[in-house]
Amino acid sequence: MAGVGGEGPLFLALSSSFLLQSVNGKPSTGTDLEIDEKYQNTHRIDSLNILLYTFLLILTVVTIWIFKYRRARYLHETGLAVIYGLIVGAILRYSGDNTPVSHMVVDPKEPQTYHGDAPPDTLWLKYGGNINASQNRTYAYSFRGEIPESLEDEIVQKATFDPEIFFNILLPPIIFSAGYSLKRRHFFKNLGAIFTFAFLGTTISTFVVGGLVYGFLWLLSSSFSFIDCLLFGALISATDPVTVLAIFSDLHVDVNLYALVFGESVLNDAVAIVLSSAIESYGSASGGFETSAFFLAILNFLWIFSMSFLIGSVMGCLTAILTKFTRLKDFPLLETALFVLMSYSTFLMAEAADLTGIVAVLFCGICQAHYTYNNLSAESRVATKTLFELLNFLSENFIFSYIGVSMFTFDHHKWDVGFISIAFVAIIAGRFMCVYPLSFLLNLGRTPKIPINFMNMLFFSGLRGAIAFALAIRNTSSTARKAILTTTSLIVIVTVILCGGLTTQVLSWLGIPVDVEDDETHHLNTSFQPIRNGPGAEDGGEGPVEGTSSSSSKYEKAWLFRIWSQFDVRFMKPFLTNSRPTLLDTTPLCCAPLARLLTTTEQLTQNITNPLYDGDLGLGSSSSVPTRVSVAGSRGQDL
Amino acid sequence: MAGVGGEGPLFLALSSSFLLQSVNGKPSTGTDLEIDEKYQNTHRIDSLNILLYTFLLILTVVTIWIFKYRRARYLHETGLAVIYGLIVGAILRYSGDNTPVSHMVVDPKEPQTYHGDAPPDTLWLKYGGNINASQNRTYAYSFRGEIPESLEDEIVQKATFDPEIFFNILLPPIIFSAGYSLKRRHFFKNLGAIFTFAFLGTTISTFVVGGLVYGFLWLLSSSFSFIDCLLFGALISATDPVTVLAIFSDLHVDVNLYALVFGESVLNDAVAIVLSSAIESYGSASGGFETSAFFLAILNFLWIFSMSFLIGSVMGCLTAILTKFTRLKDFPLLETALFVLMSYSTFLMAEAADLTGIVAVLFCGICQAHYTYNNLSAESRVATKTLFELLNFLSENFIFSYIGVSMFTFDHHKWDVGFISIAFVAIIAGRFMCVYPLSFLLNLGRTPKIPINFMNMLFFSGLRGAIAFALAIRNTSSTARKAILTTTSLIVIVTVILCGGLTTQVLSWLGIPVDVEDDETHHLNTSFQPIRNGPGAEDGGEGPVEGTSSSSSKYEKAWLFRIWSQFDVRFMKPFLTNSRPTLLDTTPLCCAPLARLLTTTEQLTQNITNPLYDGDLGLGSSSSVPTRVSVAGSRGQDL
Repeated sequence: MAGVGGEGPLFLALSSSFLLQSVNGKPSTGTDLEIDEKYQNTHRIDSLNILLYTFLLILTVVTIWIFKYRRARYLHETGLAVIYGLIVGAILRYSGDNTPVSHMVVDPKEPQTYHGDAPPDTLWLKYGGNINASQNRTYAYSFRGEIPESLEDEIVQKATFDPEIFFNILLPPIIFSAGYSLKRRHFFKNLGAIFTFAFLGTTISTFVVGGLVYGFLWLLSSSFSFIDCLLFGALISATDPVTVLAIFSDLHVDVNLYALVFGESVLNDAVAIVLSSAIESYGSASGGFETSAFFLAILNFLWIFSMSFLIGSVMGCLTAILTKFTRLKDFPLLETALFVLMSYSTFLMAEAADLTGIVAVLFCGICQAHYTYNNLSAESRVATKTLFELLNFLSENFIFSYIGVSMFTFDHHKWDVGFISIAFVAIIAGRFMCVYPLSFLLNLGRTPKIPINFMNMLFFSGLRGAIAFALAIRNTSSTARKAILTTTSLIVIVTVILCGGLTTQVLSWLGIPVDVEDDETHHLNTSFQPIRNGPGAEDGGEGPVEGTSSSSSKYEKAWLFRIWSQFDVRFMKPFLTNSRPTLLDTTPLCCAPLARLLTTTEQLTQNITNPLYDGDLGLGSSSSVPTRVSVAGSRGQDL
Repeated sequence: MAGVGGEGPLFLALSSSFLLQSVNGKPSTGTDLEIDEKYQNTHRIDSLNILLYTFLLILTVVTIWIFKYRRARYLHETGLAVIYGLIVGAILRYSGDNTPVSHMVVDPKEPQTYHGDAPPDTLWLKYGGNINASQNRTYAYSFRGEIPESLEDEIVQKATFDPEIFFNILLPPIIFSAGYSLKRRHFFKNLGAIFTFAFLGTTISTFVVGGLVYGFLWLLSSSFSFIDCLLFGALISATDPVTVLAIFSDLHVDVNLYALVFGESVLNDAVAIVLSSAIESYGSASGGFETSAFFLAILNFLWIFSMSFLIGSVMGCLTAILTKFTRLKDFPLLETALFVLMSYSTFLMAEAADLTGIVAVLFCGICQAHYTYNNLSAESRVATKTLFELLNFLSENFIFSYIGVSMFTFDHHKWDVGFISIAFVAIIAGRFMCVYPLSFLLNLGRTPKIPINFMNMLFFSGLRGAIAFALAIRNTSSTARKAILTTTSLIVIVTVILCGGLTTQVLSWLGIPVDVEDDETHHLNTSFQPIRNGPGAEDGGEGPVEGTSSSSSKYEKAWLFRIWSQFDVRFMKPFLTNSRPTLLDTTPLCCAPLARLLTTTEQLTQNITNPLYDGDLGLGSSSSVPTRVSVAGSRGQDL
C-alpha cells in the first residue's frame, strides 16, 4: 500500500512525535492511507477509553486506601467508583473537544433483493471518495443498533461499552468468586431460609414491584405494558451483596446474618436473571395474560435454572476429576490455567446453549471450592484464590464506575420522572413484602429464630448493583427498556451510596452484635494469605458436610441438606477429591475393585505425606487457628 | 417492547430448552423482536467463539501436561497450540453448518453531502423491513473494513478477532512479564552484547531481509514496493523467546547464553515494532527514496523509542513511590490492584500518545521488578508474580492457537508462493548476517568471549512468534500487506514447530553445557512459590547493582552499566524502595533534611522488622538457598 504514496500516515506517524494533532488534520488523497488513519484513530480512541476507566480504578483504589487508613467506613469503594464515574461522565459529556464520527446516510441499492424484516447484519458500500471516485472500493459495515434521538460524539459514544462485555467478561469472575469464596458451613446451615428468600422472596418482590409499578403507571396512563413492569420487577429484585458484606466482614457481624444476606443476594441474582428471561419470553408471546404461555414461562424458568445448575456442577466435578487423576499438580501453572479455563468455559457453554451462564458459573464455583480445591497444589490454591479476588475486585469497581460514567455518556437513557419515583416506592414495598412475611413463616419452623433486628437488617441491605444494571443495559431497544435502564442505574447509584454509607450506623441502631468471634468470618479476609485459608479452610470448617456426630445435632432442621451431606461425604468427596475417607472405606465390599480404581495412591497415603489436607478432614478449628493470627494485620477486608 | 407482541423471542427463549434450533428459524414479524433475536444471536456466536478458544487452550494444557509427564520435550506448548489451532481452523473452514451473514448493498443517499475520501465511520440506514415498511427506523452501521475477494460465513468470520485485541489485551501481559521476570543480573552483565544484537542486529536483519526480498521479487517482477519489503523485514525480525527459553530453563543451560537469547528477543521485539512503524511513516511519505523523509523516519524512531522508554520507567517509579510512601501494603488486594492498574495504564498511555506501548510496558515491568517489588507485601509479591505468569501463559497460547485457526478462517490471507519461498531464504540470511558478524565484533572487546556454539545456538533460536504476527495482522488493507500476513503466519508456524521441536537435539549437537547450577535459572521456575523468589530473589542475586567490591571485578567491560548501577544504588533504590541503605546513608549531609523526608520509618527499621528484605541487601546467595531446595519438586518449568 505504502507505494501508492501521499503523505497521510507520515503526517500521522510524525504526529506521534507532536501528539495527536494529526487526528483532526485534513485527510489527504489515497484511500488506503485514509483507512490506515482510520485504524490508527480507532486504536487511539480505544486506548483512551480503556485508559479512562483504568485511571478511574486507580483513583478509587488510592482513595479507598485513604478511607481504610483513616478507618472511615461511611463510603465503600463501590460507592466511590460510582461517584468518580459520575464526575468523569459529566466532564466527558459537557467537554466539547471530541472527534466527531463521520456518517453518511444510505439507501438500499435495490430493496427487493433483501428479504426479511430485520435490518441486515452488514451493509456493503461502494465508495471511492470524491477526488478519485474512479477507483471505487467496497467497504463492509456491521450492524450497531438503532439510532437514538440524540447522537453523541465519538469519545462519548466509545466510553460506553458493548453490553456483551458485561456478560462475557465482567460478570463471570464476580459470580464465580462469590461461589468460590462461599462460606459453606453457615450457608448450608441456613440453606432453608436462603432458598426461601432467594426463590419465593425474589418471585414475590418481582410481582409486587411489577404490580405496583403497573398500577401507578396505569393511573398516569403511561405506555408501559404489564410485561415491561414485571421485567423491571424481576431485574430490580437482584440484590447486590458487595457493599454490605464488605462492611459485615469488616465488623465481623453475626455469622448467621452474614450467611443470610450473602446467600440470599448471591442466589437471587441467579433467580432474577432466569425470571427476567422467562418473563421476556412469556411477554413476547403475548401482551396480555395467557395461561398456556404462562405455564410455558414457568417450564422455561425451571428448565433454564436446572440445566444451568447441571452444567455448572458437572463442569466443576469434571475439573475435580481432572485434577485428582492427573499429576497436574506437579505443574501449578498448568493446574491453575486449567482451573481458570474450565471455570470460564462453564459460563460460555451455558451462554452458548441459551441458558444462564451466571447460574452455571455460580454452582461451578461452589463445586470447585468444595471438591477441586482439595486436589490443588498449595501454589494453585493461593493463585486461584488471589486471582479471583483480584478479578472480582477489578470487575466490580469497573462496573460501578461504568454505571456512573454511562449515566451521562450512554445514549440510550430515557428519564421518566413518574416511573422513577414510582419505582423507588415499589422496590421498598417489594423488599418489605419479601423479607418480613417470609421471615415470620420461616420462624414457625426454624431454630434459631430470625430476630426482628435481623429482619430489619435484611430489609435494609437490599442494595441493587451490577446484575440489575447488566440486565437492564442488555437490551435497550424500546422506550420502555430505555426508561428501565435509566431507573435501574439511578436505583443502583442511590442505594449503593446511601445504604452502603449508612450500613455501619444502621447496624448499631439495630443493636446487631458485631465483632463476633468466628473463624469463618476471618477466612473471608485472609485469602491473600497462603494455603490454609480460603476454600480449603472453609472445607475444614465444614462440620456438617463431614456429618460428624459432634456437629450434626445443630442441623436437625436442614433434613434435605443432611441427606445430601451424607451422600456427599460417603461418595462424592471420596470420589472427587484426594481427601480421606476413601471410597474403599465408604463403599460396600462388593464395589471394592471399582473403589480401588477410583482411589489414588496419594489419597491412600493422605495424612501421612501431606499435612496440608488436614484442612479437609474436619479439623476446621485447628486449621483456622493460624488464620486468626495471621489476620491480625487485617487486609483486603473489602471482600 | 415485549408488549408489541409477536412470538419471535418466545420461540427464541424456548429454543433455549430445545437448543439453538431457533437460530435458523424463519423470523416472524415485529422489527423489535428481530433486533432482539439479532442481539441474542450475536451473543450466542460470541460465546461460541470464545468457547472455541477456551477449549483449544484446555486441550493444549492437558496435552502439554502429558508431554511433561512423559518427559517428552520434542514439542512445546506453543507448538501444540498452533497445531490444534490449525486443525480446528480447518474444521471450521470446511464444515458447512454456519449461519450466513445477511448483507445489503447500499448507495449513498446524496454523495455530495459527505466530504472526504475516507469511507465514513458510520452509515445510517432507514429500513422498516418488507412487511411493515411503513414504520421506518434508522439503524447505525459502523465501519468494519474493505471487503476481501471471498466472504466467509459468520462463524468463521467471527472466529477471527479484531487485531486491536492483540495489542490492547494479549500483548501487554506477555511483554510486561518478560520485563518483570527478567533475570537482571545476567541481563546487565551482557548488556553490551544484548543491546548490540537488539539494535544493530535487528536493523541489519531488517535491511538484509527487506533487500533480499525486494531483489528477488523484482526479478519476479512482483508488485511489492521497497517499503513493503522493508516493513516485512522489520516485523519479521522480531524473534520470539518463549519456546526456546522454556526449554533452556527446562534444561538449565548456560546462564550467559540464556541471558543473550532472552535479552535479544525481548528488546528486539521493541526495536522491530518501532522500526516498522518508522518505516511505515517513511514509506507513506514516498514510494521511492528521499533523504529528508529518511532522516525524519530515523528521528521518528529515536523519538518513539525514547519517549516510550520514558513513560514506562516513569510510571514504574511512580508505582514504587506510591507503594513506598503509603501503607497500602496493609491491604494486599488494593496493592496488587494498584500494581496491575498502573502497569496496564502505562501501556495505554503510550498507545494513546501514538508511541509503542510494548516498549513502555517492557521497561515499566523492569522498573516494577527492580524497585516496586521491594515495597510490596509478601502476599502481593506472590500475587503479582503468579498473576502475570498465568496471564502470560494464557495470552501466549491463545495467540498461537489463534495463529493456527486464522490460517484457515481469517479472510485477509493472500498466498504468494514466490514471496513465501523467498521470505524463508531471506530470514535465514538475515538471521545469519545479524548473529555472526556482530558476535565476532563483540568478541574483539568482550570477556568472556561468545563461543562459536553459542553463536550457532543464537542463530538457531531465531524463532518468530506473537509480535511478528501481531504486527502483520494489524493492517491488511493492501494486497502486499495480506501477503505479508500470510507469509508471517507461515514463518511463525514453521519456526515454532520445527525449531521449537529441535531445540533439545540442537543443544546436544552443539555440545552446549546443560544442567548448569545457577540459582537464577531456578528462580525462573519457582515464581509460583511464595515470597523469596521471583524479582525479589533476583534482586538478591544482583551483585552488580549493589556494586559490592566482591562482584564488581567481573564487570569491567560494562562501564556504562557500572556508572548507572552506582547511581542506582546510591540514589534510585534508596529513594524508591524500602531497602537499605537509606538516602541518609548515601547522600551528603547537606541534603539530610530532604533525605529524612524521603526515608520511611519502615526503611530505617528495615532489617530488624522485616527479614524479607534481606533479599534486597545483596545477600543474594543466602536468599536463593531455600529456592534451590524448594524447586526440587520441579514445577511450571515452562516459564
